[in-house]
Amino acid sequence: MSRILRAGIVQHACTEDRTENLARSEAGIRLAAGKGAKLLLLQELHTSVYFCQYESTRLFDLAETIPGPSTEFFGALAKELELVIVCSLFEKRAPGLYHNTAVVLERDGSIAGKYRKMHIPDDPGYYEKFYFTPGDAGVAGTLGASTAPPAGFVPIVTSVGKLGVLVCWDQWYPEAARLMALAGAELLLYPTAIGANPADATDEQERQREAWITVQRAHAVANGLPVLVANRIGFEPDPTSQTPGAEFWGSSFAAGPQGEFLAQASRDKGEASIVDIDLERSENVRRWWPFLRDRRIDAYGDLVRRFRD
Amino acid sequence: MSRILRAGIVQHACTEDRTENLARSEAGIRLAAGKGAKLLLLQELHTSVYFCQYESTRLFDLAETIPGPSTEFFGALAKELELVIVCSLFEKRAPGLYHNTAVVLERDGSIAGKYRKMHIPDDPGYYEKFYFTPGDAGVAGTLGASTAPPAGFVPIVTSVGKLGVLVCWDQWYPEAARLMALAGAELLLYPTAIGANPADATDEQERQREAWITVQRAHAVANGLPVLVANRIGFEPDPTSQTPGAEFWGSSFAAGPQGEFLAQASRDKGEASIVDIDLERSENVRRWWPFLRDRRIDAYGDLVRRFRD
Repeated sequence: MSRILRAGIVQHACTEDRTENLARSEAGIRLAAGKGAKLLLLQELHTSVYFCQYESTRLFDLAETIPGPSTEFFGALAKELELVIVCSLFEKRAPGLYHNTAVVLERDGSIAGKYRKMHIPDDPGYYEKFYFTPGDAGVAGTLGASTAPPAGFVPIVTSVGKLGVLVCWDQWYPEAARLMALAGAELLLYPTAIGANPADATDEQERQREAWITVQRAHAVANGLPVLVANRIGFEPDPTSQTPGAEFWGSSFAAGPQGEFLAQASRDKGEASIVDIDLERSENVRRWWPFLRDRRIDAYGDLVRRFRD
Repeated sequence: MSRILRAGIVQHACTEDRTENLARSEAGIRLAAGKGAKLLLLQELHTSVYFCQYESTRLFDLAETIPGPSTEFFGALAKELELVIVCSLFEKRAPGLYHNTAVVLERDGSIAGKYRKMHIPDDPGYYEKFYFTPGDAGVAGTLGASTAPPAGFVPIVTSVGKLGVLVCWDQWYPEAARLMALAGAELLLYPTAIGANPADATDEQERQREAWITVQRAHAVANGLPVLVANRIGFEPDPTSQTPGAEFWGSSFAAGPQGEFLAQASRDKGEASIVDIDLERSENVRRWWPFLRDRRIDAYGDLVRRFRD
């Protein structure tokens, strides 16, 4: 018994030219669709360079609404090619209120749902707290209310399954992956934009890349779910020259529910990876390793504390 | 700036002869102490074969009290060799009430603390729910009580640092590692007994071993903490012949706070691995990747639910 979903993961470099970036995403999508992909994952903020390398109010001009230009563009592609597309964009929700948002386009071109990035980083060269308001879905009034409908970290229901879409910095948080799994996600998907500081030693750069791969494979293991990750490639300079810029490390990958690699892209080439995911395998793996059965929910209360001091 | 802790991790095969098993553990401890180790981790249930391969009331005779024979034996060694020892035993707490417990012996021979395994597995050949009552530390009355003292998943304070001691099946749960980190653990330590079913295909056996390594390295990454793991080696037959027995895969290891390997033992040899851990590195790694800063504690409430349905 198996239920195969063929997925595509597209990674590419980005430029200052939005039209060119859209063309690169589209080329990858068409390639994957031609090979039979029914689900397509794009990298984080794929329509622009990673603009968060510095803070400028001018850059809010890059933001767009939902629906808007990106959802129209990728919605039309999803409809034409009859596949589900997970895209990423800089969302303008209201004047002065912006999010880092993943949008899922259904294969009829409609918007299946969106996810606003919940964990927002801020470190030299990644000034996201300036640009992105943290996602607020399901934050108020649901804690401990076991009869309330699930809210926050909720999978998006599509024709290919329930997609646990998270974004970049979220990938370091086992809590986010777990909440998606508990809400019935069948896959975890991470559009991301992460790279090395070229001034760091090579072994430090490699430790960081390995850590990034390891923690996401572990979400697969801990939850018995497949994981798909898309990350951009290419060097992008810091326009302010305050940092040495970012060498985005690509390495987009897919892992099965034991964390096993199903596909791995290069660090530096534009690629559309194709991967066959057996959605029935989670059921089998969870029978062998029934982690959800044994969670000590009676002893996890302090997970909602900042620190146990 | 660095603060180096030299640690030893001992793995060995076990027999039906308790005296022989103690001698093997002692030999590893003396070897590590001779090389300057100040912290020593033993594997899970190292004084016996892994008796949970079948259920028999007779086997409760293997249990012992705390203090008792094991804490006396390892306490004396800890005092003589002036190092902290993390040992594991089958604890008799009261008639009909047994635990799978790790005990930490301070270098003066005293008991620094104990941890009763919280997550208890039960699958063919690992019938632990029959033998072990789940740990109950800090379960009642602490949920959401932010003014209450931390309880459950609490590190053990020793002369070499705050030890986040967990046991085997706990290792699959990011919640356990996170709660230890939030309570100030400086290291995570896992005594464990896990092996392959020899009837499984080789690639399946390897996926399981890799998953086990990956999920524990990820606890290091997600929490910015070093992780030490000890696992037994050797084939142990199932006395009932209901299963093909267990081929314990050793592979004890240490990882730094980015999940990087610091030491890795073989799958099949008795070994005392020696590893130098820089306890200052967690501070540095957490400055680069300040995951604790950005946890969405306002949105994690559903982590105490069994399933979000």
